[in-house]
Amino acid sequence: MSSYPKPIQHLIELFSKFPGIGPKQAARFAFHILNEDETKLDEIARAIKGIKTEVGFCGLCYRSIEMKHKKNEVPLCEYCSSKSRDPKIVMIVEKEADLANIERTHAFNGLYHILGGTISPLDSSGPTKLHIKELFHRIQKLKMEDGSPEVILATNPTTEGDMTALYIERVLKPLEAQISRLGRGLGTGAELEYADEVTIANALTNRK
Amino acid sequence: MSSYPKPIQHLIELFSKFPGIGPKQAARFAFHILNEDETKLDEIARAIKGIKTEVGFCGLCYRSIEMKHKKNEVPLCEYCSSKSRDPKIVMIVEKEADLANIERTHAFNGLYHILGGTISPLDSSGPTKLHIKELFHRIQKLKMEDGSPEVILATNPTTEGDMTALYIERVLKPLEAQISRLGRGLGTGAELEYADEVTIANALTNRK
Repeated sequence: MSSYPKPIQHLIELFSKFPGIGPKQAARFAFHILNEDETKLDEIARAIKGIKTEVGFCGLCYRSIEMKHKKNEVPLCEYCSSKSRDPKIVMIVEKEADLANIERTHAFNGLYHILGGTISPLDSSGPTKLHIKELFHRIQKLKMEDGSPEVILATNPTTEGDMTALYIERVLKPLEAQISRLGRGLGTGAELEYADEVTIANALTNRK
Repeated sequence: MSSYPKPIQHLIELFSKFPGIGPKQAARFAFHILNEDETKLDEIARAIKGIKTEVGFCGLCYRSIEMKHKKNEVPLCEYCSSKSRDPKIVMIVEKEADLANIERTHAFNGLYHILGGTISPLDSSGPTKLHIKELFHRIQKLKMEDGSPEVILATNPTTEGDMTALYIERVLKPLEAQISRLGRGLGTGAELEYADEVTIANALTNRK
């Protein structure tokens, strides 16, 4: 890659840090940028630079929300401030895209708690970066107010997701909340022929 | 996707225009950006905004080069201004990344001509956007100066690449230059079991 001009190489380095992007794809991005017109680049640069002042996070579930609020007020998202949702049921998800996909089902009427990632076995500082302490206080408060909070662990069915779920279960244990995890089994439309062993084993264990 | 705040949605729209990026991946980018710190975002925004003033194109082959030149001078890249390369052999590639990969082989010692894309059957304005007119004048000049330019068509072995190569062959025909295309056959390390029919047919035709 050393043959590209320095400003292009710099862009490639920056794009390589984007999730799921390797150096070849980053180079395609850089040349895409180089071939865009000036106005478009201005628009992209402004959107990137402005995002942190224009977008904040819900003070309860850490969902991203547009910042129109007064500085000293803790903003709440539309779900957390909704009267028609059950605040005693808290679904814990890794990231906001997971939440968006769950909302699409219209099958859940509680509130969410976005962790902001997973605990990685390689990163010892992991748990402190996630919103786990805040989760503890949130469930604790529900417990004191009402007595029967329900927690649904909806982390991804991956090694990291499972580790994170186990960690949270341990953290929340003293609160004696009702904790469940999303069911495991065959996805709808999946083919038995191509399902992996763990999925089939889970489908067998969870048969009804 | 309608549940994301407007500034996030705007970023998602912008990232969706990046090559090979769909709305889900664009959303991952947007949240990645949202979680970066202010200094990093400044750096990204500046790199994107500055690219067009910092990078220009070689006046002969259209490779990107860092702009340190005086305004009125036509800049040449290191290959086109090199004394050790043969300017009579011109290899035509679709984009700069192709050139970079060919250079890595150290098997070619001529110059390049970057088209800046391919002719798409769906886009009738295609040929005028590519550097084909410039290619014609370049080969014409070589012809007048020297008499025997050689053109190697190194477009990708795809429908668009093949169409573009055919179009260029037709355009260059009156110049009576020696024109060849990259050999077709099995890639090194490919497995016959998984090779498609066209590749095998080409490998048979081009057997030595």
